[in-house]
Amino acid sequence: MTSPVTTPISHTQAELDAVQYNADGLVPAIVQEAGTALVLMVGWMNRDALERTLSTGRTWFWARSRQEYWCKGETSGDRQYVREAYYDCDMDVLLFVVEQEGRGACHTGERSCFFRAFGGGATPGPV
Amino acid sequence: MTSPVTTPISHTQAELDAVQYNADGLVPAIVQEAGTALVLMVGWMNRDALERTLSTGRTWFWARSRQEYWCKGETSGDRQYVREAYYDCDMDVLLFVVEQEGRGACHTGERSCFFRAFGGGATPGPV
Repeated sequence: MTSPVTTPISHTQAELDAVQYNADGLVPAIVQEAGTALVLMVGWMNRDALERTLSTGRTWFWARSRQEYWCKGETSGDRQYVREAYYDCDMDVLLFVVEQEGRGACHTGERSCFFRAFGGGATPGPV
Repeated sequence: MTSPVTTPISHTQAELDAVQYNADGLVPAIVQEAGTALVLMVGWMNRDALERTLSTGRTWFWARSRQEYWCKGETSGDRQYVREAYYDCDMDVLLFVVEQEGRGACHTGERSCFFRAFGGGATPGPV
């Protein structure tokens, strides 16, 4: 099976500068699946991770616990190919529409990280 | 036109306690539109705002700039009626699927706050 095509996303330095990073220099990034519109996960990006994401067309995050960059799926094979990239009205949240390769976005093996619903206890529910 | 039905979402105190609030006691909450799956906005909730949201079936947030609770649409009429409520694998992000009343979620008048794409400059693009 061939992997999806990687496509860089056009952007300007002014846009990267205009993003409202928090006190730690980070901004939350929602990842949504193209086609299904399933919300897959949320990661955090600093300016450099955002630039890498747009330049490479793959999602890059800043791992707060490990204090290092990670490119989603580089180890697991569950890669994300960016198709559209948005920012919100306040420019303090990002939204990436991606083609998800492999099993899905969640390290548990679920397609989406949002597989549990309130009131459902610990039992995985449908998204 | 009658407003959508308000439906409380079942939940437990253990679930509210298990949510991973940040150093400010807040957790990001994604709001997605039922039916269209459009990502409408992201707001922040503390434990009490989350409990109000689940108990009332309407979205409640903590306004960081104003340091006060706000119930979405209480002034504008652009209310959100919660249909499903999820938390992610790390329990540090919430996802609410809502029925959006009125014009939409964004204070600019756009349906979604994510109406601008990278590379599109300041021109609103489709989501």
